[in-house]
Amino acid sequence: MDHSDLQAAPAWQLSERALKLTSSAIREILKVTERPEVISFAGGLPSPATFPAEEMRAAADRILRDEPAAALQYSATEGYLPLREWIAARHSTGGVQIRASQVLITTGSQQALDLLGKVLVSPGKPVLVETPTYLGALQSFSLYEPRYVQLPTDERGLIPETLAPDLTADARVLYAIPNFQNPTGRRLPLERRRALAEFAKRAPFPIVEDDPYGALDYAGEPLPTLLSMAPEHIVHLGSFSKVLAPGLRVGYIIAPEDLHFKLVQAKQATDLHTPSFTQRIVHEVVKDGFLDTHVPKIRTLYRSQCDAMIAALERYMPEGVTWNRPEGGMFIWASLPAHIDTMKLLEEAVARNVAFVPGAPFYANDAQHNTLRLSFVTVPPAKIDEGIATLAALIRARA
Amino acid sequence: MDHSDLQAAPAWQLSERALKLTSSAIREILKVTERPEVISFAGGLPSPATFPAEEMRAAADRILRDEPAAALQYSATEGYLPLREWIAARHSTGGVQIRASQVLITTGSQQALDLLGKVLVSPGKPVLVETPTYLGALQSFSLYEPRYVQLPTDERGLIPETLAPDLTADARVLYAIPNFQNPTGRRLPLERRRALAEFAKRAPFPIVEDDPYGALDYAGEPLPTLLSMAPEHIVHLGSFSKVLAPGLRVGYIIAPEDLHFKLVQAKQATDLHTPSFTQRIVHEVVKDGFLDTHVPKIRTLYRSQCDAMIAALERYMPEGVTWNRPEGGMFIWASLPAHIDTMKLLEEAVARNVAFVPGAPFYANDAQHNTLRLSFVTVPPAKIDEGIATLAALIRARA
Repeated sequence: MDHSDLQAAPAWQLSERALKLTSSAIREILKVTERPEVISFAGGLPSPATFPAEEMRAAADRILRDEPAAALQYSATEGYLPLREWIAARHSTGGVQIRASQVLITTGSQQALDLLGKVLVSPGKPVLVETPTYLGALQSFSLYEPRYVQLPTDERGLIPETLAPDLTADARVLYAIPNFQNPTGRRLPLERRRALAEFAKRAPFPIVEDDPYGALDYAGEPLPTLLSMAPEHIVHLGSFSKVLAPGLRVGYIIAPEDLHFKLVQAKQATDLHTPSFTQRIVHEVVKDGFLDTHVPKIRTLYRSQCDAMIAALERYMPEGVTWNRPEGGMFIWASLPAHIDTMKLLEEAVARNVAFVPGAPFYANDAQHNTLRLSFVTVPPAKIDEGIATLAALIRARA
Repeated sequence: MDHSDLQAAPAWQLSERALKLTSSAIREILKVTERPEVISFAGGLPSPATFPAEEMRAAADRILRDEPAAALQYSATEGYLPLREWIAARHSTGGVQIRASQVLITTGSQQALDLLGKVLVSPGKPVLVETPTYLGALQSFSLYEPRYVQLPTDERGLIPETLAPDLTADARVLYAIPNFQNPTGRRLPLERRRALAEFAKRAPFPIVEDDPYGALDYAGEPLPTLLSMAPEHIVHLGSFSKVLAPGLRVGYIIAPEDLHFKLVQAKQATDLHTPSFTQRIVHEVVKDGFLDTHVPKIRTLYRSQCDAMIAALERYMPEGVTWNRPEGGMFIWASLPAHIDTMKLLEEAVARNVAFVPGAPFYANDAQHNTLRLSFVTVPPAKIDEGIATLAALIRARA
């Protein structure tokens, strides 16, 4: 179907926010790259090799055998209490006590962003974001019509000392991904976390710490979360998408109780509650320590995939191309010579059966058009080598 | 936890829309009535006796055995194509052809309301609703700050000839529940459906036909949907919550393709997609005609429950109390003498272990405080008799 025709003339008057809606460039590209011959570095999809299908199958069977009425009935907006308690306990580290009454289960982390948009974002008021930032967060917040303020970053992420009053005045929220950021793969260092947590304690707005990738640090040496450093001043978003499976759509928000209560009200109006059945499957699988043995396997796999891509980049890329070496997560961020527009490069690459995501859509303002995001987790190493070689040849041809 | 304290002083500045958010009176009351000794006519919950748990257990097992990677991975925002095709075929009746490209799977019907709010509702612009209407729709739309216009109704529902230009000017959407409406249980007669469909063809805004209860007509003689009468002018909402189980949270929107595409974009920003696994369970259970034998069982059960409540009302209620005799669905709507406020009556009733939902929250404006909604589907007939007797005694005492 050609959507361009259909978008042109809706018969009915739409809301202003709907007229501004655009599709995720990532998802439109993914449609093109579903052809099996395409080597796609575009997806943000975890490797299905890591999905614990048999554990989930056993869990689903037990739940529908033992408690079908509860698993199939309407349930509390806040979420399944044993899962909320498990999450609270998991985040209670280093003397910090997180309460189940702070935890709201969401229909994936994307819903957490929508709910935060509903509750915190006001038309024309500043939302502070990293440069660049997660495209899906921009999509969610944009429905509530904020003004974006991009915060300076370097190759280690946000720079706390740049958070001057003129930049943060009247802001309603600061959105950050401290661990293996999407799209850059950057991890915020410990000393910057401390400074950001101190900033949060004084700020009249919350810092949202979006943390879907935190468990995926290759060395198994996680840095403390902002939540653990300033629990009353941070809104922490977590997800089971990258450590179990994304198709269940189970994520969560940890927030101080007063904000939690408003988020619950917003969720009630949004989808009543996250499916009772999927919440129970997640709890049944994780409750006895499964992640402690499962997550290290994902880390090992992703690390070797990442190593393969770094090796290929070093082997093929011409001078003037730079990239980072992630300590975890799913993404590498690359910069090309300034005259190369990666949107145009993508067209050529797709014609040669290679895909990636151009960097521009990840900028709230003033996009850097010579950037791109490379995902390495689902492509076999030999194909990584082949795909990067193809990309490098295209870049050389434009040099 | 006492929420009243927590709501009083949020530390952070919330959006205007968040400050106006209130909890559903229904859900707050449900919390009180979870005590087993309470006879609750308050719930909108279907009877768990109707949940096909064994069919779902078998379906979940087959799916996680045969296609775990697809069932657990991210998937298309539009929904699982075989389920969309099944829904399109099911609604293609009487010469009308509904296309799978018009169907969007939603995380329950409540999400359909949120997405329609995002795409169609603008601050201060009129949204036309029945008098009274579904409280959950008011909650969803209110986040997008419309002005509500209540449309006149009588005991048979909306009155098409009252849709005069002064009432509908500048409206962005008309929201209606033609089948066994929540809260009134009313079914719109055939001739009014025809008139409303003709109105839709001329109107510069869509009619949203919310139809969760359509299959629950006790005589098994459904009336045609508005969708079947004016397929390009109606947005039809459907749900598996009342015919399979609500805990899976699977609903859908059928809309013309141009609006469908905007709704898909809004859903992408809202929760990416409805869980792949629950969509596949629904499809696996319904694809071979299961509903044709299952739904008649639900109808028979609900009809006998309804008969029990009607008999109890006739037996106990004093003069001045009126109610309708539903032809289907889950609800009876009652009116008491004008001086009785059902919110106050509820306090007395809960003290005597009987619950219902006061009618006032179902009005967008100008609430009728002497009305109430009674749900009969989950209470055994003997308890229905006892509960109605208690209510009647309280009403007599206030006469």
